[in-house]
Amino acid sequence: MANKNGVEWSIRLGDGSSMALEPEPEPKYGVMRLWDGLKGLVVRFVMRVWMFLKKAWNLGVDDPRKFLHSLKVGIALMAVSLFYYMRPLYDGVGGNAIWAVMTVVVVFEYTVGGTLSKCLNRMFATTLAGFLALGIHWIASHLGHEFEPYIMGISLFLLASATTFSRFIPIVKARFDYGCMIFILTYSLVSVSGYRVDNLLRVAHERLSTIIIGTCLCIITSMLIFPVWAGLELHLLIPRNMDKLAKSLDCCVADYFGRGDEESKKSLQGYKCVLNSKTSEEAMANFARWEPAHGRFNFRHPWKNYLKIGMSTRNCAYCIETLTSCLTSKNKVPESIKKHLEAACMNLSTSSSNVIRELATVVSSMTRSAKINMAVEDMKSAVLELQNDLKSLPDLLIQTHEHKDENKVALSEMTIMPLIEIMPLVSFASLLIEMASRIEENMVKTVEELAESAKFKKPEDEVKPKHNQTSNKINASNDENITVLQRV
Amino acid sequence: MANKNGVEWSIRLGDGSSMALEPEPEPKYGVMRLWDGLKGLVVRFVMRVWMFLKKAWNLGVDDPRKFLHSLKVGIALMAVSLFYYMRPLYDGVGGNAIWAVMTVVVVFEYTVGGTLSKCLNRMFATTLAGFLALGIHWIASHLGHEFEPYIMGISLFLLASATTFSRFIPIVKARFDYGCMIFILTYSLVSVSGYRVDNLLRVAHERLSTIIIGTCLCIITSMLIFPVWAGLELHLLIPRNMDKLAKSLDCCVADYFGRGDEESKKSLQGYKCVLNSKTSEEAMANFARWEPAHGRFNFRHPWKNYLKIGMSTRNCAYCIETLTSCLTSKNKVPESIKKHLEAACMNLSTSSSNVIRELATVVSSMTRSAKINMAVEDMKSAVLELQNDLKSLPDLLIQTHEHKDENKVALSEMTIMPLIEIMPLVSFASLLIEMASRIEENMVKTVEELAESAKFKKPEDEVKPKHNQTSNKINASNDENITVLQRV
Repeated sequence: MANKNGVEWSIRLGDGSSMALEPEPEPKYGVMRLWDGLKGLVVRFVMRVWMFLKKAWNLGVDDPRKFLHSLKVGIALMAVSLFYYMRPLYDGVGGNAIWAVMTVVVVFEYTVGGTLSKCLNRMFATTLAGFLALGIHWIASHLGHEFEPYIMGISLFLLASATTFSRFIPIVKARFDYGCMIFILTYSLVSVSGYRVDNLLRVAHERLSTIIIGTCLCIITSMLIFPVWAGLELHLLIPRNMDKLAKSLDCCVADYFGRGDEESKKSLQGYKCVLNSKTSEEAMANFARWEPAHGRFNFRHPWKNYLKIGMSTRNCAYCIETLTSCLTSKNKVPESIKKHLEAACMNLSTSSSNVIRELATVVSSMTRSAKINMAVEDMKSAVLELQNDLKSLPDLLIQTHEHKDENKVALSEMTIMPLIEIMPLVSFASLLIEMASRIEENMVKTVEELAESAKFKKPEDEVKPKHNQTSNKINASNDENITVLQRV
Repeated sequence: MANKNGVEWSIRLGDGSSMALEPEPEPKYGVMRLWDGLKGLVVRFVMRVWMFLKKAWNLGVDDPRKFLHSLKVGIALMAVSLFYYMRPLYDGVGGNAIWAVMTVVVVFEYTVGGTLSKCLNRMFATTLAGFLALGIHWIASHLGHEFEPYIMGISLFLLASATTFSRFIPIVKARFDYGCMIFILTYSLVSVSGYRVDNLLRVAHERLSTIIIGTCLCIITSMLIFPVWAGLELHLLIPRNMDKLAKSLDCCVADYFGRGDEESKKSLQGYKCVLNSKTSEEAMANFARWEPAHGRFNFRHPWKNYLKIGMSTRNCAYCIETLTSCLTSKNKVPESIKKHLEAACMNLSTSSSNVIRELATVVSSMTRSAKINMAVEDMKSAVLELQNDLKSLPDLLIQTHEHKDENKVALSEMTIMPLIEIMPLVSFASLLIEMASRIEENMVKTVEELAESAKFKKPEDEVKPKHNQTSNKINASNDENITVLQRV
């Protein structure tokens, strides 16, 4: 006897017979239904919060420095609030100590460069605006008490407008945006308080000193406890992107010739990181210029060159983006023709990605490579090989049918496979060649420029005279092959 | 008699003879040289400042709203400093009025959405942190005076660390970054001042009310005086980028077939704006979601769909980036072959850019287009035409030489032009076809999605029954041509 739910409970009674248990009718009271709905809401809310926390935790596990940064901020804030909690210190710095707290909260950034840039902007802008406000205040008070509010008001209006406008200028925006804001803030605070507070100089001095305490604390914490250098981050990001690009290229070509697996389909997507990394590269380069010498980098390390390499990497990524569309192409090229070019294409992709990886090693190890010229030569000859295979392609396309005419003379009739069938393959090959040319013309050049301006070391295993010989030889072969890498 | 400088001055004397004037020896005194150097420095400095000002001025002339924004900030600051300058107001709100000034400086952004997002973040975070700090302070004070600093310090450390960490989470970063900062700031300020200031509740109330005054002032100024809506900006940016893309495509193809002029070389670069607009699109969409209904946009206008269209536009821009490399190709395709495909390529580029322009009009006018299906059909038939021309290409490649053998039988010998010579043209054509397929598969689809979710108007000149007929017809022809746009 099945009830509505299709589940049946029964109790075997003492006399051997069994009695089916009818399920209790579901309670339909409004209160209970509300309660159920509420329970569902709470459960869903708890689940969402739980998922959110799990994601956040994974974020930290992936890069534990994010945890560390959070702890550093906590430590700096604790340290600065000591000024308040301890009476002796409090009596020294006075009620303005909240400015130190505020400075720590506002100024502390993830990277040392970010923190430094904000600190310096804040200190410089505060000083400048403070003195300017005091000066104008002094002039206004000498002109007469009744003019004071007007002079201060108009000067505030003019300075605030001009400074706000300057924040639209790209170079100011990139480097001094925060400074501009602090300039307006300080000027308006001093000018409005100036009208009330009598002992202006003392206030200005106290405020400046607490800000200096706050900034120093930030700088010390961010530079000494597990520092995150923007420069180093940029230095690591660029070769990492190059490696991703090389991996994507390999996977893309392997996939095209049916040699890819699940793993390779995943790493194929790596080039997308490269496409979207412009903003973060620029931000890091911007912060890096504020950083003092650290690790292997001088104060004036040529960070701009890293941006150029990033640009050339992105140029190649555009090519790969177009290449991947060949993977999803529905017009299939005849397998025989594909086989004809497979070896040359695989060879070119391998040698191209070798060059990229070698360049990435040059950047990350900051050492010129003895192998890079060889790798470029390899790539060039792979291009030549592919071009040769392409040249011999038309023979494959001609299908000869021999037959005899009325005079019994053998005649050969030729039909040509429609070009449209091999078009995807041709454009695939031509994109590979274009990519090789971009690697040689942009990437190798920009890395070379960085090596020049950052004075990268010579490779250790290199002996001077031998090097000259090799490079001469390579130069000679360069001249021979000068036409090889012309875009076809 | 030439002197060192090669210039000679002479005076004709009374007796007809002339006397050369020796140039005075240059003064070599250290002071003078220093003076000259200083003058040079000053001149160069003045020149640089002048150039900078000129650039800044042009920036404002190009977009006068930037001037207006600067004036708006000045006006808001003037208005808020009235609280200070006027004694009655001052007595009302108290010394905490600096918080109103600070709020205006920190919160005022270029777009309404930016200002609103910061205002709401600030108000909500201040309230939350204030109550939390008061609550913990109350608990701590009941547990005993000697534990108070420890409890407050530890809670500050924990909350600051947790909140700082949450700023790394992408969704928090995008929407509540400023709120997190203000939360930490308020909590630490209240908790440290709580230890000193006795009348905490009064302080909290005053601070909150001044912040509300500041935010209201900002919101009113930014929404009523020449408002810049982030949503509207995004709504204008997306079709503008699409138009740039269409223009770039036209110029690129015209240039390839030698029909470009200086003008077209300049507009060819337009696609680069599209490549780099991701960050600004995302920022605008992010601000737009905070904005109330304005103009033709509801509060819940589907801004996310604009980002999708932006993505599909960028997808096409990648194609153009690769297309442009064909322009600089050094291997020249024989003119006869180029001529063979010219008409079809030009036709395809024109019809593709027509589709893009039509889609841009759909987005900007928020009205579905009656012509879009026709335009897509045109593009499809242009693809077919180009494919047909490509199919007939091999005939051109065969150069037939007739000659007679010993038996006087006419034999035709065929040689085939190397495929490699036409490779750039083939890959150019295949990129054009790929682009058409991206326009149809991505761009048309994403615009259609936007039209769906934003409930775009039907075109005015459309009569209902006729429309049904047309669309049926188009659906039928869609089925026929379904294979046309497969990527070749």
